[in-house]
Amino acid sequence: MLIKENIAEEYKKIQDEITAGLELLDGLALFEEENWERPGGGGGRTRVIQNGDLIEKGGVNFSAVHGKLPDAVKKAFKTDKEEFFATGVSIVLHPHNPWVPIIHMNIRYFEMESDGGDSLRWFGGGIDVTPHYIIEEDAKFFHKHIKSVCDKSSLEFYPKFKKWADDYFYIKHRQETRGIGGIFYDRLTPENTEISWEDIFEFSKNVGRSFLPIYTQLVAETRKKTFTLEEKQWQFQRRSRYAEFNLVYDSGTKFGLETDGRIESILMSMPPMASWVYNFQAEPGSLEAKTLNLLKKDINWAI
Amino acid sequence: MLIKENIAEEYKKIQDEITAGLELLDGLALFEEENWERPGGGGGRTRVIQNGDLIEKGGVNFSAVHGKLPDAVKKAFKTDKEEFFATGVSIVLHPHNPWVPIIHMNIRYFEMESDGGDSLRWFGGGIDVTPHYIIEEDAKFFHKHIKSVCDKSSLEFYPKFKKWADDYFYIKHRQETRGIGGIFYDRLTPENTEISWEDIFEFSKNVGRSFLPIYTQLVAETRKKTFTLEEKQWQFQRRSRYAEFNLVYDSGTKFGLETDGRIESILMSMPPMASWVYNFQAEPGSLEAKTLNLLKKDINWAI
Repeated sequence: MLIKENIAEEYKKIQDEITAGLELLDGLALFEEENWERPGGGGGRTRVIQNGDLIEKGGVNFSAVHGKLPDAVKKAFKTDKEEFFATGVSIVLHPHNPWVPIIHMNIRYFEMESDGGDSLRWFGGGIDVTPHYIIEEDAKFFHKHIKSVCDKSSLEFYPKFKKWADDYFYIKHRQETRGIGGIFYDRLTPENTEISWEDIFEFSKNVGRSFLPIYTQLVAETRKKTFTLEEKQWQFQRRSRYAEFNLVYDSGTKFGLETDGRIESILMSMPPMASWVYNFQAEPGSLEAKTLNLLKKDINWAI
Repeated sequence: MLIKENIAEEYKKIQDEITAGLELLDGLALFEEENWERPGGGGGRTRVIQNGDLIEKGGVNFSAVHGKLPDAVKKAFKTDKEEFFATGVSIVLHPHNPWVPIIHMNIRYFEMESDGGDSLRWFGGGIDVTPHYIIEEDAKFFHKHIKSVCDKSSLEFYPKFKKWADDYFYIKHRQETRGIGGIFYDRLTPENTEISWEDIFEFSKNVGRSFLPIYTQLVAETRKKTFTLEEKQWQFQRRSRYAEFNLVYDSGTKFGLETDGRIESILMSMPPMASWVYNFQAEPGSLEAKTLNLLKKDINWAI
């Protein structure tokens, strides 16, 4: 039997593991922690790292909140349940070096209860990568790795959640994907996965614990590469697309803004520096053009 | 009798006057023009200036579009009209010098028709200023000037449209106004203004033609001021709030993104460089703190 407090405790441990690991990996900056309480119930630990050797700005957020379900959410979920509980770990890292990708990971659990006692609950989450310059070898490594994490739980997960990520991390007004995708999933229950609650929780923890080895591998070579001012400017431009996605489409951000969440925690994912250039045209054949060409859905990277 | 083609022609002239004036004022960069056509009917002239002496990035856009009213808009306007016509001039300028404010101006005319022949139409627009550092003297000059433009048409305009701007240019999730406001108005008709169509059109042109003298005055001293790297960084941070407003709240941007408008024209208002810093706290008593304190509604600047 899953108990929500245990899920929160495990997620907290995963946050601890990741921030400890990232401090070692960065080698210069340390996380600053902000403990916050939610007026309606619960709270969180926001941990932010800035101006490191590897990471320019990044956040690893844990929260476990509960309380009355806001009317807007009730409506969106088409439910008459009164109480909710939500816990999760959420990460976004913006590196200094434009050759190192932006990475995002989230694992979460959500539960709604009514006085009667029966409850609605599910797991959600995902991990995805947004390179400023797509390095095909790294994209393949990442997708293969996360596929193997999925395959341990169900062979149906990777194809389904990979497509879900392609569709979710899509910047419609630019007609481009945010990056090379990864996996995205939501509302997982035994009914729609054919595995038990315990196994779904196990999958959720495995996704969380895949973060450090994946990121460690992705930065190993790229962080050492030299870069030009032009490449840094290109990074700023790609970050502006990241900002557009988060402010215009991202459900978590929108939910946070609409429900008066802690604004600095919600927007910790925003880039430290981003640039909008009018009508930028990448030079044909350039690495920038090559990257833009690969910001498409349905690329089979896991081969 | 107002004829929509005449309105578009006048707006086009105003665009010409403003871009010519801004090139003189900048003294270094020239506008690049992009003529575009809208697949459903009409088109526009996007003019963008980048890396000038005064202006880091700015756009002065004219458009006159027409066609079938999209279903989403019909629904929003609660109308069964089939055809629409919209024309306007829209400006956003991001200066190099953090002491120079960001300025925004828009004048527009909108018309809907059904086969029957009767039409629904109105004028909208406004002008507002977003200083990175609020200089009270300049804020007063601006509000007094735009009040005098309003007063020529109706004494009710300034108080009403000033409040409208305070409410509209409000970043709810930050609980701060975008800048020092100005005027904002929409759906002006003889019924709700008690002045004729001709006089409303006259007002619209007056707002458009107030842009150059206002901006010229606002930059006269500020563009000469020296600034530090810290002040430039503060400008980047303020610009991130501008980006947040445009992507999260601005109706024009949202309308454009949802109706597949020309993306580079819609987002020409985005800052050339913007920065999100986690949990920034202005030093008590600093100019930054003073500015944050003045990002409030209902300040009476026109005295």
